[in-house]
Amino acid sequence: MAVPKEAVQVFRHRLHEIIFEADTRAGKWFDVILILSILASVLVVMLDSVSAFSARYGAYLYRWEWFFTLMFTVEYLMRLACVRRPLGYAFSFLGVVDLLAILPTYVSLFVPGSQYLIVVRVLRVLRVFRVFKLVNYIGEASVLVRALKASRRKITVFLLAVHVLVIIFGSLMYLIEGPKYGFTSIPRSIYWAIVTLTTVGYGDISPKTNPGQALASLIMVLGYAIIAVPTGIVTSELSLASRKTVSTQVCPCCMAEGHEPDAVFCKFCSERLNPETGQDT
Amino acid sequence: MAVPKEAVQVFRHRLHEIIFEADTRAGKWFDVILILSILASVLVVMLDSVSAFSARYGAYLYRWEWFFTLMFTVEYLMRLACVRRPLGYAFSFLGVVDLLAILPTYVSLFVPGSQYLIVVRVLRVLRVFRVFKLVNYIGEASVLVRALKASRRKITVFLLAVHVLVIIFGSLMYLIEGPKYGFTSIPRSIYWAIVTLTTVGYGDISPKTNPGQALASLIMVLGYAIIAVPTGIVTSELSLASRKTVSTQVCPCCMAEGHEPDAVFCKFCSERLNPETGQDT
Amino acid sequence: MAVPKEAVQVFRHRLHEIIFEADTRAGKWFDVILILSILASVLVVMLDSVSAFSARYGAYLYRWEWFFTLMFTVEYLMRLACVRRPLGYAFSFLGVVDLLAILPTYVSLFVPGSQYLIVVRVLRVLRVFRVFKLVNYIGEASVLVRALKASRRKITVFLLAVHVLVIIFGSLMYLIEGPKYGFTSIPRSIYWAIVTLTTVGYGDISPKTNPGQALASLIMVLGYAIIAVPTGIVTSELSLASRKTVSTQVCPCCMAEGHEPDAVFCKFCSERLNPETGQDT
Amino acid sequence: MAVPKEAVQVFRHRLHEIIFEADTRAGKWFDVILILSILASVLVVMLDSVSAFSARYGAYLYRWEWFFTLMFTVEYLMRLACVRRPLGYAFSFLGVVDLLAILPTYVSLFVPGSQYLIVVRVLRVLRVFRVFKLVNYIGEASVLVRALKASRRKITVFLLAVHVLVIIFGSLMYLIEGPKYGFTSIPRSIYWAIVTLTTVGYGDISPKTNPGQALASLIMVLGYAIIAVPTGIVTSELSLASRKTVSTQVCPCCMAEGHEPDAVFCKFCSERLNPETGQDT
Repeated sequence: MAVPKEAVQVFRHRLHEIIFEADTRAGKWFDVILILSILASVLVVMLDSVSAFSARYGAYLYRWEWFFTLMFTVEYLMRLACVRRPLGYAFSFLGVVDLLAILPTYVSLFVPGSQYLIVVRVLRVLRVFRVFKLVNYIGEASVLVRALKASRRKITVFLLAVHVLVIIFGSLMYLIEGPKYGFTSIPRSIYWAIVTLTTVGYGDISPKTNPGQALASLIMVLGYAIIAVPTGIVTSELSLASRKTVSTQVCPCCMAEGHEPDAVFCKFCSERLNPETGQDT
Repeated sequence: MAVPKEAVQVFRHRLHEIIFEADTRAGKWFDVILILSILASVLVVMLDSVSAFSARYGAYLYRWEWFFTLMFTVEYLMRLACVRRPLGYAFSFLGVVDLLAILPTYVSLFVPGSQYLIVVRVLRVLRVFRVFKLVNYIGEASVLVRALKASRRKITVFLLAVHVLVIIFGSLMYLIEGPKYGFTSIPRSIYWAIVTLTTVGYGDISPKTNPGQALASLIMVLGYAIIAVPTGIVTSELSLASRKTVSTQVCPCCMAEGHEPDAVFCKFCSERLNPETGQDT
Repeated sequence: MAVPKEAVQVFRHRLHEIIFEADTRAGKWFDVILILSILASVLVVMLDSVSAFSARYGAYLYRWEWFFTLMFTVEYLMRLACVRRPLGYAFSFLGVVDLLAILPTYVSLFVPGSQYLIVVRVLRVLRVFRVFKLVNYIGEASVLVRALKASRRKITVFLLAVHVLVIIFGSLMYLIEGPKYGFTSIPRSIYWAIVTLTTVGYGDISPKTNPGQALASLIMVLGYAIIAVPTGIVTSELSLASRKTVSTQVCPCCMAEGHEPDAVFCKFCSERLNPETGQDT
Repeated sequence: MAVPKEAVQVFRHRLHEIIFEADTRAGKWFDVILILSILASVLVVMLDSVSAFSARYGAYLYRWEWFFTLMFTVEYLMRLACVRRPLGYAFSFLGVVDLLAILPTYVSLFVPGSQYLIVVRVLRVLRVFRVFKLVNYIGEASVLVRALKASRRKITVFLLAVHVLVIIFGSLMYLIEGPKYGFTSIPRSIYWAIVTLTTVGYGDISPKTNPGQALASLIMVLGYAIIAVPTGIVTSELSLASRKTVSTQVCPCCMAEGHEPDAVFCKFCSERLNPETGQDT
């Protein structure tokens, strides 16, 4: 009954390899099944909202919902078990998402009729980002994220300018067309200005008078031209962002990802990465 | 009655040159007539769907349909005849399209009222890509294809992020506005989120409440800004993709295209390219 | 009464300088007045189409129309007079536009009720491109034109692919939704597919069924992503197109524009450019 | 009662540092409070236009409006007081905006019912650009502004071409569809052409006839393709625009901004920048 401490260690390492990494065959299968379960559980939430469907197959959906919740609960506990610093994982972004994926179903037992939990349940879809690890796309994703981060400030300046523009144009339109033509208040006129400047153009509110249509034309041409600005920003940053491949390893201690393929120690907490992989596989 | 084997060889080579290549005068004329027939036959399918038109000229359309089908059948058989590996051609992408272009009309003789064949018939339009060979655009097309292939992974990451966004925003909108304002289910709300994020903006479903319009504004500005991402990806790949001209020759053995202008042998199967062109023309 | 041939020469050169160039003070004033007249005459055509306005001020508009027509006629004759090869000018692009700007008004005297001439009259607006000469924007315009010409083939390939896509998707939608939901024929469904793929999204026809909305979502995301392709093409060409300033001189013999500032002879017909400018100014 | 001239000088310098700069702790706090007040005052103007809200809380909004006006008045006077050349500030862009932010409320005391002042009041939002100083974004903003200025001429050529296109296409559509289908005049048809070319697509006016839809398709594909042009222009300019950080210092004499971090003297008027910062802080 006395399990040697070393065997536990090895078992935890093996579990960590399967659950958090995708370098081994078992780890890949685990991830494939996980992704499919996530997609299926999101599908269940969606179908549940289609009244015709839920009226007919509600009982089945309910059972599937519990099936996935229990499955994700086991997975969550296993993740907690095999990580060296469970709290670090529990409070990381994906850790919180993992918890939010199972909590709403339990809560719904005690708080009846809480349909607001539906959105929390849908957040499960965020877990799908784990797929990057599976298909070795971490490198691609991190290039994109780095380019977006680098252009963060320029995009902020651009968005600030866009907001000032829509506030001024929205107010102008409120004056020109007024409540008679659907521009009932400045906030609603600003909503219209955003719909127009971003070239979405619902048509739920649209200018009817001649000066209104002239101003609208101006906003459209402006929106058509200044879309060039974020594009130019991201393009020039993207061509700067260097490209390098990143391993799928996750630090067993601090949960950090994005280690380079030849890394032996975690670059954030100096914990040794994956000693078993080197020895056993 | 004994046709020497060599004469058959020469004839097949000549046929191959005319049908599959556009370097000779006969080959060019063949391609021009083929393209015009393809466009005309697609036009016939389209006009057939206009009820006012088909009621009046249905008989003529029917005859033209059969004319083109027989013509394409002859062409298909000739292609099979002059290729060294008929099966290789028959199962290639354009080979399957060539077969699909003639099959539906024959099937419609036995399976009455099968209007679903209309889309299969329209697939004929894919054959129009043969036009690239005619106008020496293979090089341009392959640069584009190469750039798109190189940015495949980044585009996938982007599309995955977009899908996660629309699922979350769609669910949020379902909560905020609900069935009362047209957001009858989560799938429909996701459809609305896609319509909005991609700046299409039909206006068949549009937010009516203030918080709904605020969320919609957020999605629009987001969609307006992140369109910069695929653009940046493709632009940086396109400027990397090298440019070189490519011949219109097709290997008579393995059907491979994209040979360089000075190539004498197929770079994929080492078959001699076009021996006649070098000797006869 | 005998005007010396040399004086005529000098006068024609002077006229050419004023009318066709913008390097001298008189030439600049001529161009400014011309541009304003063009804009005013286009405005007259526009206002004439507003029924409320033309009912009231129709007589004034009619007089202005004739005023501009006579003015442009005089200008056209002067252009013919001072160019060395009048036929070359008359059949050049801007020469034809200049003629089309005056013809419709005369024709309307003999052919009553010909409202179709209205569009020909509006073509006057093309003359406004002469403004480039005035503000020294020929260089900018030619860089853009050169970049667009260089990317002509790639854009063609892209547009062909887009057309094949909308034909296939339009036909699919015709099958899925059918005449019951507004998709009355394949051509109309293709029109809808174009409206959707280009992210215009009128909403005059929109999918109602679930599979239809799913297909529409696919087209939207596709259209949102592939807009990156033309952008990437033009961007990479634009950064290649070299930038150099170009003079506003026009060859008095062959009407060619785009000469470099230090050019003494026309690079197309070897005619001496502007001898007076060098001597008189 | 005799305040020594030097003490006044020091006080003015200190005030200048707080109000116009964001390098000191007091300056940062001043700017944070100012930005929040600006946003709050714009919010007050917006809410005032929502009839349901203003009917209920009109009195509160009125008081807040006066609170912010008085606050901004004090700020404006202080700015005038601590600048060496008050007139230079008063007639600078931000100086005029500062004045316009307070004027309308005073004017409304004498000119009753002047709802047109609402837009002038909303111009307050322009003051928010002062935020750039706070967050050290002047560098980012100036890179964008420089890139836009550099591409000014090319964008002008592009916009001119777009306007010529929409005028011609609008007139054509007026002929094809005519007043029967909503295209009541050429200006309105041009409005429709702009809505379509910029891919906004309200759907308030949309083609109904077959030739009309064919022309509309052409305009859409054109608009979809030529959006690549401004994007290409801005992108190539942005990658050229050099990047350097800029200090938040403002010259106490000529109000010029954009000095480099190690600048000791104003690069425009040679005035010493911020002598106190060097001595006191």
